[in-house]
Amino acid sequence: MIGKLDELTLADAAVRDGLKWTQVRPGVIPAWVADMDFPPPEAVREAVARRVDTDLGYPNWLDDSVGPLAEAFAERMETRYGFQPDPGLVRTFSELNQILQIVLHLMTKPGDGVLVHTPTYNAFLNTLRAMDRRPVPMELTPDGETWHFELPSDIGATKVLLLVNPHNPTGHCFTRAELSSLAEFAERHDMIVISDEIHADLAFSPDAHIPFGTLLPDRTITLTSASKAFNMAGVRCAVAHLGHPAVRAAFDAQPLDLYGTPSVLGVDATIAAWRHGDAWLAEVLAILDRNRKLIAERMPAHVRYQPPAATYLAWLDFGIPDAADYLESGAGVRLNPGPLFGAPDGFARLNFGTSGPILEEMLTRITAALPTP
Amino acid sequence: MIGKLDELTLADAAVRDGLKWTQVRPGVIPAWVADMDFPPPEAVREAVARRVDTDLGYPNWLDDSVGPLAEAFAERMETRYGFQPDPGLVRTFSELNQILQIVLHLMTKPGDGVLVHTPTYNAFLNTLRAMDRRPVPMELTPDGETWHFELPSDIGATKVLLLVNPHNPTGHCFTRAELSSLAEFAERHDMIVISDEIHADLAFSPDAHIPFGTLLPDRTITLTSASKAFNMAGVRCAVAHLGHPAVRAAFDAQPLDLYGTPSVLGVDATIAAWRHGDAWLAEVLAILDRNRKLIAERMPAHVRYQPPAATYLAWLDFGIPDAADYLESGAGVRLNPGPLFGAPDGFARLNFGTSGPILEEMLTRITAALPTP
Ligand SMILES: Cc1ncc(COP(=O)(O)O)c(C=O)c1O
Ligand SMILES: Cc1ncc(COP(=O)(O)O)c(C=O)c1O
Repeated sequence: MIGKLDELTLADAAVRDGLKWTQVRPGVIPAWVADMDFPPPEAVREAVARRVDTDLGYPNWLDDSVGPLAEAFAERMETRYGFQPDPGLVRTFSELNQILQIVLHLMTKPGDGVLVHTPTYNAFLNTLRAMDRRPVPMELTPDGETWHFELPSDIGATKVLLLVNPHNPTGHCFTRAELSSLAEFAERHDMIVISDEIHADLAFSPDAHIPFGTLLPDRTITLTSASKAFNMAGVRCAVAHLGHPAVRAAFDAQPLDLYGTPSVLGVDATIAAWRHGDAWLAEVLAILDRNRKLIAERMPAHVRYQPPAATYLAWLDFGIPDAADYLESGAGVRLNPGPLFGAPDGFARLNFGTSGPILEEMLTRITAALPTP
Repeated sequence: MIGKLDELTLADAAVRDGLKWTQVRPGVIPAWVADMDFPPPEAVREAVARRVDTDLGYPNWLDDSVGPLAEAFAERMETRYGFQPDPGLVRTFSELNQILQIVLHLMTKPGDGVLVHTPTYNAFLNTLRAMDRRPVPMELTPDGETWHFELPSDIGATKVLLLVNPHNPTGHCFTRAELSSLAEFAERHDMIVISDEIHADLAFSPDAHIPFGTLLPDRTITLTSASKAFNMAGVRCAVAHLGHPAVRAAFDAQPLDLYGTPSVLGVDATIAAWRHGDAWLAEVLAILDRNRKLIAERMPAHVRYQPPAATYLAWLDFGIPDAADYLESGAGVRLNPGPLFGAPDGFARLNFGTSGPILEEMLTRITAALPTP
């Protein structure tokens, strides 16, 4: 199943002109921001070209209460995950972090707590800081080949659980038992659950993604987009399934266009990816699966690493000061520093969403540069 | 200068699959929603294809305080209109109506007045209604070949002037004298001016667009996008130049992503249109100029019509009950009914953003269907 995407060379990737490849010094290989190096599925390319060639005006579904994006989302959730969201409860936005900010803005106040696993996806940590919402941490600790966390004993008045599943940066896919305990906890404390499932399509078999909306439909705001799995973060098109009635009422009480609307190009690209991108996705998953194992083989034993159950992100404990800085200057590979995720600076996140040859080169450089313990 | 865009036939246009052409009964020619029938400039097509082919991830300017869209906007304003906006005061959104809603949301309360010309662009009228802001009207009345309005004597506590210049639906281009009187009034009443200049590039010589920001820079929020002049409303990419310091402070006090961000596809399409679309625009303007005059020639004398100074919108007083309905069923041409804009039902708005042959067919149908007075 590994095909030509895996043949991508450093020279091929270096022509990419987005943030990932342009914000590194010459010669440094970027393994930081969460974009992969693969071109998106051909179906995305065709859908975008078709939209420009037919009609770039107001779309025919503009006044429909349920648009084609909501339909495509519902269809995909049901087919892949047995989750049956109501397309009528779907609202569209430009990005997940935006939707998180809206929910926090409408449903909480500065100083309020937000229950969240640590380490925490950096953009969400920034949102909590910028909005003065207090993280109530559930620490993920290594546990054999997986991760463990405890439910907190006292959460005070905290009323939001921000779940990132699959988890960034650990790549943990929460198990049914874990999700059930979270659901029971959220129910008992009358919480709103914001469930970011943007990495769902990137789970490696036999691990499997379980939508939180299947456990607690009336409390869950499910967030997703095609931006991670299909490598198109720039299109800015995201969906929120507003299962929680009070959250839905708060959203719908706002002026209709206050939060903007995604581009028709983003909508068509997303629908194309979801409906016609799965062969591409299978090829990418095979590469990523090989990659996550390759990292385990190649990293020295003193680097703590558990291959992620999902995502193209490797969470590594190098056990050296300022690991990311050290590797950027010493190995010419740019990772994301652990402190961005609220972790100690011995940690760093490596993006392995790239071809075998490029990952090999990164690993060769990193292992050569690491101090012997 | 009139070239092949003017050769568009009914059969060519009918393959367009957006709102305008799909929401009419078979055989009805759509002259309602403000999209033209022309394909966008080739440069837009190329920019979008290039973005898909190079990198659809996070854009290289993501963390820049001034992005390329702000630069392109500032450059265009200066070159075409002698307006020198500060790119650092530009913020990007998905659409103009969204930005209007944000300003009203942040700076006014339900029940507050908004000074606005009547008739009024329908989407803005809907926004005022939905947000319970009270229109304080300045009626535009026909005056020779132009339009006249009076400043109100008493506006109470009204603190927002919503200016649409060039004006929709009349196509009026406000003169320097009119703008100066509005500026003096806004200054005297300590107002925030929201200046929608989305139709600026569609002014017909010798009429010329004057940005309100050149008159009252510190009070003006200038709104625009490439969506009207370059016929790409679906890309959802708009800019706001926040000249008013208190409005700017209110915007910047919000969480960074609360209002979303446009797609990189929309940003690249807009920049391409602004930087490389002017030959296309000149061709379109020549067609529209011919069209606005053709309507005057072909309409019977009892239909009141002044060719617009800008836009592809003709504001017509047919002087018959339910004019738009009458013409849709009787002539097979769909116009926008006057009441949508707060006007009597004898008025209707005709969209002439189409080729000569299609406009000829519409006018033939309309004139044949009109009752003799
Ligand atoms: C967990 C998670 N959520 C959301 C996003 C992306 O969000 P957005 O679409 O807001 O850029 C990412 C990107 O890396 C992510 O890892
Ligand atoms: C005066 C005016 N403002 C704004 C718009 C479009 O706004 P938006 O980009 O919010 O759809 C139009 C469209 O017809 C318009 O005529």
